[in-house]
Amino acid sequence: MSTINPDERAAAIPAVPHTGPVTLINSFEVDAGRDGAFTELWSHTSGYFRAQPGFVSLRLHRTLSPNAPYRWVNVATWASVAQFQAAHQTEEFRQLVGQPAWKEFPSSPAIYEVVTEYSAQA
Amino acid sequence: MSTINPDERAAAIPAVPHTGPVTLINSFEVDAGRDGAFTELWSHTSGYFRAQPGFVSLRLHRTLSPNAPYRWVNVATWASVAQFQAAHQTEEFRQLVGQPAWKEFPSSPAIYEVVTEYSAQA
Repeated sequence: MSTINPDERAAAIPAVPHTGPVTLINSFEVDAGRDGAFTELWSHTSGYFRAQPGFVSLRLHRTLSPNAPYRWVNVATWASVAQFQAAHQTEEFRQLVGQPAWKEFPSSPAIYEVVTEYSAQA
Repeated sequence: MSTINPDERAAAIPAVPHTGPVTLINSFEVDAGRDGAFTELWSHTSGYFRAQPGFVSLRLHRTLSPNAPYRWVNVATWASVAQFQAAHQTEEFRQLVGQPAWKEFPSSPAIYEVVTEYSAQA
């Protein structure tokens, strides 16, 4: 279900209304040895998103597991679906994800809500 | 790369030594309409992990995206690879993930390190 199509680079939006924060989980296929090219491209695109209204936080993860299908995963929180969606409907977004260099790194984006949260006792 | 094999229910461990915290990202295939059966099973297994040394925190996510291949994703932080690994080598772990009910919910676990982190300006 991963894609190199710019039109599918944004997570599908729920058909039913949703209020409150949402989490983007976007998994990337990156060949070992191409981490530098990926992070350069990702950092540029990420700079756009971090400046948009509704962006809350993100963590970019690199795998430690041999043979993980997705070597890089971005987990990002947005204040609302509406703001997440607005950030993905601009001409700047289309230009960023339409860069030919992205074809090397198929991605699989989806949005989620946090249902359960636990922290260890301090 | 998802699996219903109990022997593959734990994320593969890096061949090279790693220090510091790690993040498990475990994605589950759950049919719409089976969320109740999944969360009951997951909560039971999660109770085991939350009690293990090295468990730091977790967030269980349910998708809002129509047709997401993985409708549920657990993102959990552990204090070290060694403690994560130890928690996955007990007889209790094997019994928990060996439950036949888990066959309905293939999972795709991998461990990661956080490479980049950003928060919006307050």
